[in-house]
Amino acid sequence: MIDIKYINELKSIFGDDWVSEGTSIRELHSHDESFHSHTMPDVVVWPHTTEQVSKVVKWANERDMPITPWGVGTSLEGNPIPVHKGISMDFQEMNKILAIHREDFQVDVQPGVVYKEMNKILGHHGLFFPPDPGAAATIGGMIANNASGIRTVKYGATKDYIMKLTVVLPDGRIIYVGNRARKSSSGYNLCSLFTGSEGTLGIITEATLRLVGLPSNFMAVRAVFPTVLDATNTVFSIMSSGLVPSAMEFLDDKVIEILNRDRGISLHEMPTLLMEFNGFSATGLKEEMGYVEEICLENRSVFLDKGIGAAERARLWEMRHLTLESIKRSHAGLLPLIMDVAVPLSRYSEIVAFVKEEVKGLVAYIFGHAGDGNVHVVVMGKPDDIERWVLIEKANRNIVLKAIEFEGTCTGEHGVGIGKRRFLPIEHGEGLVLMKNIKTLLDPNNIMNPEKFFV
Amino acid sequence: MIDIKYINELKSIFGDDWVSEGTSIRELHSHDESFHSHTMPDVVVWPHTTEQVSKVVKWANERDMPITPWGVGTSLEGNPIPVHKGISMDFQEMNKILAIHREDFQVDVQPGVVYKEMNKILGHHGLFFPPDPGAAATIGGMIANNASGIRTVKYGATKDYIMKLTVVLPDGRIIYVGNRARKSSSGYNLCSLFTGSEGTLGIITEATLRLVGLPSNFMAVRAVFPTVLDATNTVFSIMSSGLVPSAMEFLDDKVIEILNRDRGISLHEMPTLLMEFNGFSATGLKEEMGYVEEICLENRSVFLDKGIGAAERARLWEMRHLTLESIKRSHAGLLPLIMDVAVPLSRYSEIVAFVKEEVKGLVAYIFGHAGDGNVHVVVMGKPDDIERWVLIEKANRNIVLKAIEFEGTCTGEHGVGIGKRRFLPIEHGEGLVLMKNIKTLLDPNNIMNPEKFFV
Repeated sequence: MIDIKYINELKSIFGDDWVSEGTSIRELHSHDESFHSHTMPDVVVWPHTTEQVSKVVKWANERDMPITPWGVGTSLEGNPIPVHKGISMDFQEMNKILAIHREDFQVDVQPGVVYKEMNKILGHHGLFFPPDPGAAATIGGMIANNASGIRTVKYGATKDYIMKLTVVLPDGRIIYVGNRARKSSSGYNLCSLFTGSEGTLGIITEATLRLVGLPSNFMAVRAVFPTVLDATNTVFSIMSSGLVPSAMEFLDDKVIEILNRDRGISLHEMPTLLMEFNGFSATGLKEEMGYVEEICLENRSVFLDKGIGAAERARLWEMRHLTLESIKRSHAGLLPLIMDVAVPLSRYSEIVAFVKEEVKGLVAYIFGHAGDGNVHVVVMGKPDDIERWVLIEKANRNIVLKAIEFEGTCTGEHGVGIGKRRFLPIEHGEGLVLMKNIKTLLDPNNIMNPEKFFV
Repeated sequence: MIDIKYINELKSIFGDDWVSEGTSIRELHSHDESFHSHTMPDVVVWPHTTEQVSKVVKWANERDMPITPWGVGTSLEGNPIPVHKGISMDFQEMNKILAIHREDFQVDVQPGVVYKEMNKILGHHGLFFPPDPGAAATIGGMIANNASGIRTVKYGATKDYIMKLTVVLPDGRIIYVGNRARKSSSGYNLCSLFTGSEGTLGIITEATLRLVGLPSNFMAVRAVFPTVLDATNTVFSIMSSGLVPSAMEFLDDKVIEILNRDRGISLHEMPTLLMEFNGFSATGLKEEMGYVEEICLENRSVFLDKGIGAAERARLWEMRHLTLESIKRSHAGLLPLIMDVAVPLSRYSEIVAFVKEEVKGLVAYIFGHAGDGNVHVVVMGKPDDIERWVLIEKANRNIVLKAIEFEGTCTGEHGVGIGKRRFLPIEHGEGLVLMKNIKTLLDPNNIMNPEKFFV
């Protein structure tokens, strides 16, 4: 339990209403959407300003009190679980869009903004923020995890959209990194150092994001294949043709089966690709569609559902979004482990085949951002079925090792958190020593989201 | 002078032929293409392998001997000048393309490869590396400076194309950072830390670069305007229309005058924009051209030269490339200071107007990568005309301060080197302390390219 003196000191920083020791509140901040063990923080605080964050970080650093930043808890590797207890810092109250710079394609936001809500507002200005992880993530969480998602194949990950950050360092100092010019070669790239650092190096309290103009036209394609290999070969053919899809998603037959059952639709229960293309010119898109169709047929596609326009696009994504929810709903009482490796495109067919073999006999659903070489496998298990979890963890390990052997990565987009720590020495070798040195340089007392990244 | 014992030790690492104390060789490595004071290294070495680099770095670190990596000397801020003498490490012999991964849109290269030559070879595979700084730079130099150039407006800077690096740290350890998957959230982004670090944190001895498919179709436009403001307003209108130019260059009347004279052509000697658009579909590009024309005319363009196709494109760039050479040739005996600020697009008209006012009375040529908000001013001066250089430096300072006031940067693409060091405290504030801490962490003996970044 935390000392009452400490609680009072925290209340003097944040105000009485923004410090809570309530059990239900602490429970809410004890887990994310993963299967990782829950740990309750001692106390939850809700900052409203950068200055408050700075004050409390300085205070905590002097007392060796751990701080773990909290967005909304949609992460999948235990990233915001306060393993060493201490303070969970919830950014729900810092959720303002501070300024939209329409003419510069930029927006200034606080970290608690939910990207989907931000994109609704930006849409009125003809703009959008492309990274799209699906869940109702906050911008702060997305920056911390370098989130990506279905549009990354064309637009890149969160790291590619960070122009400027306000960061509170682990000793309480406030720094501003980056600038608002579209390019810069001025000093070390600190924006990139903090992006993806999962709150282990400091706390982001404000961000300037680069935006993209809303595309004027869309083309959507659902292509069905007799085998997984035909589908993954098509991914490869499309990606190396010079065509630039704005989404390229793979779903295996089992995922379609669940979607049909859970959502009352009737798609072909076979390996499927969902593709989106967008652009300035509808005529241009029609021309591209001819090529896409040709490539799919060359790869033995047995069914093509395609169309031009925003409505066609909405129809396509309706079935993809909430896939994870459909899977979970179909297996009430089970918990998911979600694998997240990424490999070079040329190895995509191989890794998917390897995955299929590894998860044989498990309750497993394979899908992924195929255009990025990213494969997800949702494997469900009863929480107390230890034997089953040993098998699931073994499959996960084998798949990660294979991805690294293919010169890929243990995590395409979910981050390291707790779940991927043990693979970092294998993936990074001596590079991990440098990461650890940087961590110690910035956070010598190890107060910032401890027990993440490093075992 | 360097001890003969040391020379012999270096020869035992590199072989007799790859260590030189010759004056002409040392003179060659004493300067780049900037006006900054020359300093000769004590010795020049030519490594052939990562292991040699590792060995000599360890050796030098134990002896507090400075090492400055050398590409081909095309930088513009004194970046590779060995200010503390010691070793200049020339990568000319490590200039191999190691592997082209056609199917993954990747290439593995050594740092001495010249990007233009690499792009010729990649072109046979339908691929290219987009950053295009103009000069015959090496990949190693481009990574060190985070180079960009005319295509950055669509494709991004060098940092956006680095997947994996082999780095020799200042103590001689070899690390591998990044991987070959198209995306990753695995640990701190060390690739981005080394990219743009100008050889101050370690030496890059191998790189895996992301590539892009060669576009199938091109559209080129030269638009002439009555005033600078009309031209810069057009930049803004085009960039905020949703159109995505693959180049958007501004040239002022004086630059066109020089080009006409030096190259025997006869373009309108008025503020000019050069624009390129590329894409999959020629039909789509024709549609875009209608919009571009409309926007130019709305902004009072008095002349438009436009065309579709690769030949039109070549004609456009013939006049832009070698602009700097034409300016230099027209002022034999004078040296250039090349300004390189970048600002948010909405401030581009203002910064160009401010620049024009500041350089009044000087021999100055204004051009730049307008689509990036990047403005270059080439100001020429007699090497010994101290009074003139005081005025030039004053203008440079005022322009940099204005760019920072506009939330831009002191260097859009040339890097910090010697020339921009004094502006870093103003641009980065407390952030510079963190940069310095990182430098000290990695290079406690300050042997790697000393006297750069930090004053």
